[in-house]
Formats: sequence, structure tokens, C-alpha cells
Amino acid sequence: MEHQPINLEDKLNKFTEYWSPKIIAKMNNYHFKLSKFKGEFVWHNHTTTDETFLVLDGAMTIEFRDGKVELHEGEMIIVPKGVEHKPSALNECKVLLIEPAGTINTGNAGGELTAKDNVWI
Amino acid sequence: MEHQPINLEDKLNKFTEYWSPKIIAKMNNYHFKLSKFKGEFVWHNHTTTDETFLVLDGAMTIEFRDGKVELHEGEMIIVPKGVEHKPSALNECKVLLIEPAGTINTGNAGGELTAKDNVWI
Repeated sequence: MEHQPINLEDKLNKFTEYWSPKIIAKMNNYHFKLSKFKGEFVWHNHTTTDETFLVLDGAMTIEFRDGKVELHEGEMIIVPKGVEHKPSALNECKVLLIEPAGTINTGNAGGELTAKDNVWI
Repeated sequence: MEHQPINLEDKLNKFTEYWSPKIIAKMNNYHFKLSKFKGEFVWHNHTTTDETFLVLDGAMTIEFRDGKVELHEGEMIIVPKGVEHKPSALNECKVLLIEPAGTINTGNAGGELTAKDNVWI
């Protein structure tokens, strides 16, 4: 077996699109994904799973129906399943997402920001 | 519901012990844990689950029976279930671990480095 570290910065340099998570690793049935956020995403929720956001660079906001959270580099949050949220970022923000394989970025909402699933980098 | 970011550095400042993972968040049935490594850990494996190591500060080594990996800040690795490994760190290394709730740090090996499970900070 070959054992290789995964360098997050190297992986982040492999794409430029916003709101288009790329898979970098799999732990059991969970995927680790990198994404770049800029601008406003859509309100959505994930009906079957919690979702983890860890900010690697920059800053982002997650709006909830009852408040909002600002996340900076080195900060994370776990959005509980079924809880509506809307990510946004004024400037480019680099994020590590952790969620079950097959989780769709727009959750229940769909629409044009729905990213292709299962893209590895 | 109260929505709060989890600041990794603030959490890391809450403990000093080595090889004693502290839980900071729960995603479905998975725990996010912070740990500080220094010195040599024991050979062990986790028979039922993969295990994620993400280096937040410093550097560490994971030895496998067929090689070894050096991990620096911003690098991660997922150790597959059942694969024997031995973490070590020459100098203090700060690590984010992600694994199912109830995963014991020494896996199948046990012994004096076995940390108390289910400690939240």
C-alpha cells in the first residue's frame, strides 16, 4: 500500500471555480471536499445529514433562519441536519467540507448552483 | 438554536497533555477531536473504522509496516481501517482527528497511553 499525505494547499491550487466542491479523500462513507466560496449561495438544508465547514483561508458567513455566524480561518461549524442555511463570502474563502459521500451541495434546494457530484482532484 | 463557530486555536489552548484527544464537535455519529502529539505513540490499528489525521501546527510522522509518512501543517491522511500505524512527533504537533464516536486512541493495542474517551472541551 502506498501512503501519501494530502496537501490541502496543493489541492486548492487545482481548481478555480466557486461553489463547486472537489473530493480529496474518503473516510469510511464520508468525503472530504475542498471548495472556494465567493458571493451568495442559496438557502438549503440537508435532510439526512449534518455538514461540516472548516475555513482554511479567508472568511465566510453562514446565515440561519434565526441568526448568522461569521467563520474565519481556523474556525469550523457543524450545521445540523435539516437546518436551513445560506453560505456566503464577500471575498474568496477556502473551505474544507466533510459530509457523507453523495451529499449534494444545494441539498433540498437544487437549482443552477448544484455542483456535479463525485469530482475528485 | 444557538449557532457558534468553533475556534481550533482557542480549543487547543484549553489543554496541555500529549496523546489525549479532546472532543470539540460531533457530526452525525463522528467526533472531531484535538490532540497534541510529542514523542512516540504505540503501534495499533482500528479494526472497524478509518481514521483521519489533519495537522494544524508542527509536523508528525506516521509509521506503517510498509513505509512511513511525514505530515506537516495543512496536510492530512486517512489511515484505512485495520492498518497498523504508529504516530510520533519529534516536537509538539497539534492535530485534528476525525473518527466515529467511541474510537479509542490506542485501538486494538490498549496500554498506558489509552486516553479517557468522551472528554469534551
